[in-house]
Amino acid sequence: MLKLDVELGERSYPILIGPGLLAQPGLLEPHIKGSRVLVVTNDVVAPLYLDTLLTSLQAGGNLQVDSLVLPDGEHTKTLATLQLIYDELLSQRHDRSTTLIALGGGVTGDITGFAAATYQRGVNFIQVPTTLLSQVDSSVGGKTGVNHPLGKNMIGAFYQPQCVLADIAVLSSLPVRELQAGLAEVIKYGLLGNHAFLVWLEQHVEALLAGDADLLTQAVKICCEEKARIVAADEREGGQRALLNLGHTFGHAIESAMGYGNWLHGEAVATGMVMAADLSWRLGWISAEDAARSRALIARAGLPVRPPPQITAEQFMSLMSVDKKVQSGKIRFILLRGLGDAVIESDIDPAMLQQTLTAGETLCRS
Amino acid sequence: MLKLDVELGERSYPILIGPGLLAQPGLLEPHIKGSRVLVVTNDVVAPLYLDTLLTSLQAGGNLQVDSLVLPDGEHTKTLATLQLIYDELLSQRHDRSTTLIALGGGVTGDITGFAAATYQRGVNFIQVPTTLLSQVDSSVGGKTGVNHPLGKNMIGAFYQPQCVLADIAVLSSLPVRELQAGLAEVIKYGLLGNHAFLVWLEQHVEALLAGDADLLTQAVKICCEEKARIVAADEREGGQRALLNLGHTFGHAIESAMGYGNWLHGEAVATGMVMAADLSWRLGWISAEDAARSRALIARAGLPVRPPPQITAEQFMSLMSVDKKVQSGKIRFILLRGLGDAVIESDIDPAMLQQTLTAGETLCRS
Repeated sequence: MLKLDVELGERSYPILIGPGLLAQPGLLEPHIKGSRVLVVTNDVVAPLYLDTLLTSLQAGGNLQVDSLVLPDGEHTKTLATLQLIYDELLSQRHDRSTTLIALGGGVTGDITGFAAATYQRGVNFIQVPTTLLSQVDSSVGGKTGVNHPLGKNMIGAFYQPQCVLADIAVLSSLPVRELQAGLAEVIKYGLLGNHAFLVWLEQHVEALLAGDADLLTQAVKICCEEKARIVAADEREGGQRALLNLGHTFGHAIESAMGYGNWLHGEAVATGMVMAADLSWRLGWISAEDAARSRALIARAGLPVRPPPQITAEQFMSLMSVDKKVQSGKIRFILLRGLGDAVIESDIDPAMLQQTLTAGETLCRS
Repeated sequence: MLKLDVELGERSYPILIGPGLLAQPGLLEPHIKGSRVLVVTNDVVAPLYLDTLLTSLQAGGNLQVDSLVLPDGEHTKTLATLQLIYDELLSQRHDRSTTLIALGGGVTGDITGFAAATYQRGVNFIQVPTTLLSQVDSSVGGKTGVNHPLGKNMIGAFYQPQCVLADIAVLSSLPVRELQAGLAEVIKYGLLGNHAFLVWLEQHVEALLAGDADLLTQAVKICCEEKARIVAADEREGGQRALLNLGHTFGHAIESAMGYGNWLHGEAVATGMVMAADLSWRLGWISAEDAARSRALIARAGLPVRPPPQITAEQFMSLMSVDKKVQSGKIRFILLRGLGDAVIESDIDPAMLQQTLTAGETLCRS
């Protein structure tokens, strides 16, 4: 088992990574302070892993463990679902010393984390991410929250877990489409700040897709390290942390236009990264070769490399202007100055942007 | 105008106290970072003070100011009302650089503060408290939140404002019952940690009730200083901050049993303090004289000194056991070791507690 420490002063916490951790008793106990626990999961993950986790938690005999199974899916990431967690906590009389454990993907983690951040103004929280995407991304950084009908992740809080447990073995039960979507975020870490990792991914992308456990363990480790490094330097997203949004300005617009859940988050981010590479190339910041290389890697990961043709440039502009990344009316783009070298830029030539928004099949193709 | 700095490291903020501040342009601008503001108020305060505040904010000509008028009252402190603020912010396309200003009493401040804490994971927040209670209490300490049908303030966050503006002149429009309720929290600061202030209050309680502006200014200043001192030492309520809950364990049970809003918060806290003094006396920690002195001051402030007779001891115990102050199943009481010397205690003789819960009219009367 690998242990990675996210250094955030008094809010520091460990990430435990390795195969079979869920079935290993004693790993989470040191991070549970009171005697009560509520495991929040969803109806897809529960039949696969809930019993294993409950057995591990109850092995010590000291914990009173409740569980709540929510419906699955991005469309359930709402204030109404959040209320179900509050209702459960209060009707079971959980007090301020309770611990919430999120067992599931990004949606379960985000909503459970927000419940933990806001129940009695904050209780203990542990993340057990069960998708590649949430293992490399949403379990590091403290972002929690729910969607609003008018925008994704518009309601939430920054809240750090006491511990993250990433069991690599659970990835074997992931549908291939979700593994691909997770790879989009993996590739993001290479593109935005680690050229050597990008080259490594170009060597191993097919093996990762085939589920090679050793390679997946390494990939999760490197992504968590990269993200932890950026987050430690900028916990509340004032500056450089925005680099993590590579592909997300375009990507959120795609998710929003298509209705959440129709495109997976990772798929939208993948296409968003191709659009970011395209715009960077049009601005003369990266070569046509590098733009094509980005696109090729994303395509090899089985991910979409063009936005849905029905989204017009006007629709893109409108959706991007309500994004959280907007500051005082200006859309902030994360673009590339090179492969492995992302930058934040608000002043973009509108003509170039227009070309990217309408490029379709010809993105990153000179 | 008096300025008090609440020292919380990078979350430090000033409290401005004085008569007529609402009508004075330029005070809030330094604490507004973007160009947009949403003032959230209620339908009682809006007709009295909203125009004055909007005029002051717009005097500089640089701000785009929206306002939202919510219904008034503790029963509106719900997730549903919170959603109205999110809806307004998103439909008016407020981005992450916006500032929320709460103009109103504790309910408006708590709910607007929670909206600020959670909109796009946190935006700027300014408090303009318009009741004595919120000026001395809820605008210092960063507590924000809403109620749940099963408990008061069960959902919320710790979130600090950029600035608090306490206009003493607005207190003249307060109903006397609300002024009395505010005085309960003022007396609390004397009882829990400042014997000299308690003596000062015994000299001036009738003049404060009559609305003497100079004395009210001094009282607000001292209470804010006392609270700021305690909060600065314990921002997230791990230890000594719990002293601020003097009277609240019993008080919340009264509010909950009677239905929120039927007893004012300050009235319930007043009775709760009499019960705390009574229990302290029964435990032999304070003299019969000191217990009677506490009760007498609270009675002179026009506040209730016995709980509603229909609340049984069993009901008290049940309601107190779901309170946020419960830790790992133990009810924490804030009791007195002397006048001006409160302590936190979880191990209480159940027989003594039972006597206090059933004492009724004979509380603090030997």
